[in-house]
Amino acid sequence: MPETDYQAIFRGALDRLHGERRYRVFADIERIAGRFPAARWRQPDGSSREITVWCSNDYLGMGQHPAVVQALTETARRCGVGAGGTRNIAGTTSPLVDLERELADLHGKEAALVFTSGYVSNQTGIATLARLIPHCLILSDAYNHNSMIEGVRQSGCEKKIFRHNDLGHLEALLREAGARPKLIVFESVYSMDGDVAPIGAICDLAERYGALTYIDEVHAVGLYGPRGAGIAERDGVMHRLDVIEGTLAKGFGVVGGYISGTAAMCDAVRSHAPGFIFTTALPPAIAAAASASIRHLKRSGAEREAHQRQAARTKAALAAAGLPVRATETHIVPVMVGDAERCKAAADRLLERHGIYIQPINYPTVPRGTERLRITPTPFHDEAQIARLTEALLEVWQALDLPRAGTPVVEAAA
Amino acid sequence: MPETDYQAIFRGALDRLHGERRYRVFADIERIAGRFPAARWRQPDGSSREITVWCSNDYLGMGQHPAVVQALTETARRCGVGAGGTRNIAGTTSPLVDLERELADLHGKEAALVFTSGYVSNQTGIATLARLIPHCLILSDAYNHNSMIEGVRQSGCEKKIFRHNDLGHLEALLREAGARPKLIVFESVYSMDGDVAPIGAICDLAERYGALTYIDEVHAVGLYGPRGAGIAERDGVMHRLDVIEGTLAKGFGVVGGYISGTAAMCDAVRSHAPGFIFTTALPPAIAAAASASIRHLKRSGAEREAHQRQAARTKAALAAAGLPVRATETHIVPVMVGDAERCKAAADRLLERHGIYIQPINYPTVPRGTERLRITPTPFHDEAQIARLTEALLEVWQALDLPRAGTPVVEAAA
Ligand SMILES: Cc1ncc(COP(=O)(O)O)c(C=O)c1O
Ligand SMILES: Cc1ncc(COP(=O)(O)O)c(C=O)c1O
Repeated sequence: MPETDYQAIFRGALDRLHGERRYRVFADIERIAGRFPAARWRQPDGSSREITVWCSNDYLGMGQHPAVVQALTETARRCGVGAGGTRNIAGTTSPLVDLERELADLHGKEAALVFTSGYVSNQTGIATLARLIPHCLILSDAYNHNSMIEGVRQSGCEKKIFRHNDLGHLEALLREAGARPKLIVFESVYSMDGDVAPIGAICDLAERYGALTYIDEVHAVGLYGPRGAGIAERDGVMHRLDVIEGTLAKGFGVVGGYISGTAAMCDAVRSHAPGFIFTTALPPAIAAAASASIRHLKRSGAEREAHQRQAARTKAALAAAGLPVRATETHIVPVMVGDAERCKAAADRLLERHGIYIQPINYPTVPRGTERLRITPTPFHDEAQIARLTEALLEVWQALDLPRAGTPVVEAAA
Repeated sequence: MPETDYQAIFRGALDRLHGERRYRVFADIERIAGRFPAARWRQPDGSSREITVWCSNDYLGMGQHPAVVQALTETARRCGVGAGGTRNIAGTTSPLVDLERELADLHGKEAALVFTSGYVSNQTGIATLARLIPHCLILSDAYNHNSMIEGVRQSGCEKKIFRHNDLGHLEALLREAGARPKLIVFESVYSMDGDVAPIGAICDLAERYGALTYIDEVHAVGLYGPRGAGIAERDGVMHRLDVIEGTLAKGFGVVGGYISGTAAMCDAVRSHAPGFIFTTALPPAIAAAASASIRHLKRSGAEREAHQRQAARTKAALAAAGLPVRATETHIVPVMVGDAERCKAAADRLLERHGIYIQPINYPTVPRGTERLRITPTPFHDEAQIARLTEALLEVWQALDLPRAGTPVVEAAA
């Protein structure tokens, strides 16, 4: 019988990525608590070197906040590390139950449900919700994150994609769908472009046409709104959303994900979602750390203010230097390159020559031709660091002859 | 336009579960480090009470091991809590890279790849592997875990289910498939019945018919084999398996999951698996804690010996008392009830009257009619606790008039 050479198949798949310049190399870094955004970069030869991270999604540096670290270490000493079981079988620990209360309160909802990640929340959450609703049609924003796309796909329901943030298109699809149940899934902050959904207007449409709304606030929770509940809180429309999904891993600096909404909705997902039921619960120490972070950011707006200020200063400095920063309404600062290989070369040069770590963002994370450096300033990136970043980028742009602001590549990408 | 009442739909789904006696109530417990398996049970009225946990999958109590707790707290103080990004974007931390080396060494493979959970390893790992292999046929054991079933489903590949541990049936399907690429997915220890796959014989068939093998050792890693690499290590057949999947959340007492195998296989999955790519990496402190646990269990066989000894003593004590223990070759001790409502009543009575926590296992985790109490003794359950468990079970069996050993319900369930 002719044998299949499985290893040759795997090597072939990798060769294709190399050929398309899409093979990814992960930088091996060690964070330094108390000195964020400084980190140690462990180079391929094993030696290590201090660098500045400019692409972390620990947007507020909460991962090193003393109250968060303290909650983790104190709870681990009291309860040990792992949960020891699924939620149903010995894994529902008190810190996790408390975290769910904290999250329900954050979003002004009856209940919340914690998953092992934001990815899993979307994937099993959307799939389960849509499957519970007979004859459900899903209306999904064209730029939705992979975790939402997988959730939609796994629901097995009919779906229609509406053009990104296009209310007219969404309304046309809602009207066309008629009286059947409909679920609108979208994000608040789209993380690669940094643009924001018209949440209130989407809620208007949902109400008019009788649709359920599911919003991903992954890149907004902790960061926007008076208590850090996200863009919907900032816009005063949180109560109009049926399901708010978020992560504990970005603004809150820990790990895990969740949905919040009515008690019946959360309980129905709790009882039916395979990705929730058949997996070990988050460790109690992680849950306690997340609660500490959320509690801090409910009371304190200082991190959010500093975050917006430093993001605005970074954008202003890069734009003044003639670098092709895409204008955004949010904390995300995309600098456009428009080519996978040159984007990677720029990132390599930044890291090796300047000790600045910004991962290149290539297809499939963004469309081809819109490759970019995605810069995420935090409250801990100070003026001197912004100045060094600007100089380093200018040196790299010059050395590699990359497109400046206003050149066609950037326009094409817009 | 007639409105859909979404909340009524969710309430209806919950009513159906109540009606079928499948609605699950999670016990809210707080583990007590250093005193495992003792824990505090937070009762629905808010008061709390000390109990003994007899259903944890922290099989060796490694979640409270001083070296594991120490690695977590020390790394959190040094690096902070969250990873701050996906593996590609700032989330590949040195403790995680070291953990992958530790795991590759554990299984004697070229490489390993860590995921946020064992669930996600199986789901995105199997789906990605099968999709990478053109025209792949998946052969899946009938008793495989939900995470594997979802992985198989999401691959979109053709699949055939072979009867549980049935080599004849597997061979017939392999023969029938002919020369096309084939992937056999199965577990080593099946966690609800505690039986073990004939791994060597499955490898024989895989070699004869040119199939790739994927084994889930989730309920065996840490627990079996001279260095705790699982049943395949114990049986001396680890090198014959193509992909070994495991969890960091059970025997190792932490959280997370992984696959190990050739460098090309791991790299191909790393580069293509959405559930790996688009999610925040495990926190460095969690990775360090997992490494500490693995390193300890590579050197020390004492936990494994004590585990097997206490499991054997528990089985013997329950069998001697005439309780319907299912005979198993492993550390898992199923006591059969055969009815969802009575199984829940038994668990409630054990907890409330005797302070013994054993979650009832009902459909869909096990087939209807085979509802059971699944008991997991650990090295920390001593003779006095085994004696108290036996007495408590006898009291409950008498009070609820549950079936004894040798009665038809148990036979039907076998
Ligand atoms: C929009 C969006 N949703 C969900 C996720 C997944 O969240 P997590 O990292 O917690 O898995 C991400 C990124 O990781 C994201 O960008
Ligand atoms: C056989 C099997 N595989 C995988 C998993 C998932 O592992 P994890 O808990 O790490 O998600 C489980 C249970 O949780 C399991 O029983």
